[in-house]
Amino acid sequence: MSFSISQASLPVFEIVLDALAGLLDKAEAFAAAKKVDQSVLLGWRLAPDMFALVRQVQVVTDQAKNGAARLADVTPPRFEDNETTFAELKARLAKTAAFLKTLDAKAIDGAAAREITFPLGPVHKGHMNGADYLNHFVLPNLYFHLTTAYAILRSCGVEVGKQDYLGKIPMTRS
Amino acid sequence: MSFSISQASLPVFEIVLDALAGLLDKAEAFAAAKKVDQSVLLGWRLAPDMFALVRQVQVVTDQAKNGAARLADVTPPRFEDNETTFAELKARLAKTAAFLKTLDAKAIDGAAAREITFPLGPVHKGHMNGADYLNHFVLPNLYFHLTTAYAILRSCGVEVGKQDYLGKIPMTRS
Repeated sequence: MSFSISQASLPVFEIVLDALAGLLDKAEAFAAAKKVDQSVLLGWRLAPDMFALVRQVQVVTDQAKNGAARLADVTPPRFEDNETTFAELKARLAKTAAFLKTLDAKAIDGAAAREITFPLGPVHKGHMNGADYLNHFVLPNLYFHLTTAYAILRSCGVEVGKQDYLGKIPMTRS
Repeated sequence: MSFSISQASLPVFEIVLDALAGLLDKAEAFAAAKKVDQSVLLGWRLAPDMFALVRQVQVVTDQAKNGAARLADVTPPRFEDNETTFAELKARLAKTAAFLKTLDAKAIDGAAAREITFPLGPVHKGHMNGADYLNHFVLPNLYFHLTTAYAILRSCGVEVGKQDYLGKIPMTRS
């Protein structure tokens, strides 16, 4: 059994998207139970100059779809960033997961040495080989925004735990 | 150029440990400038039932040393969890990085299909093959605690940004 870029990306992104959908389910139920408008939670931030929850979720999907698409050498789909409810964010997560299923694992596996160019803000571009791009850019960014979304919910009092964060990982327990 | 478990773990852990040392440098300088006792920052939490900063840093090192050691099939060193200052935490990060350098990358690369058994709390054990253990347990946990440490500092007003989080990644910019 070997180790491949597709294996270190596609199933990881799938589990992350599913885990985030589960976190949003709990957030949505919390908002309903506490009679808090969804926009309050979606606009919550850990610090004034950090992204709000809605943007954290959008960026998780962007890292997954853009990361996987660039590794597969196809153009990533563009999403409009106009979600205003938990249901719309969950639809975005599902749309991202569906896009990942269209990608060719073999093309992704061929990305190890291929140079990948990606935007860094509106002006600059970053350049890394595919292996480094996954290990040192996509995964750290993906988990950064997933963890921050989790931390926002946690600091708002939503009852989520580490299992919700890790999601449906292939682990047996004894 | 291929892709390997050692490549997806050792340099990642090294960059993470170095980035975290940089974050702690900024936190230490912030505490000195604001005349805040280090223990205040080290004891800060995002929520009452989340780990304090000191524990977040300890767990990052635990994920790196235990994760890499189990992948290399050697016994991880035990640290005492008795740090009370930024200097002591940075020494722990350095000790972890030094341990990683003793590991055999080839042994780690052979872990893909090997079953890894690891503690889940004081009673239970988790079981995963090496590839899954890295992709779905070690990396998500490592980044969870790194991001939470970052978020604690950010919410305390320490001026850290995404570059501090990502650390010295092998990226060129144009």
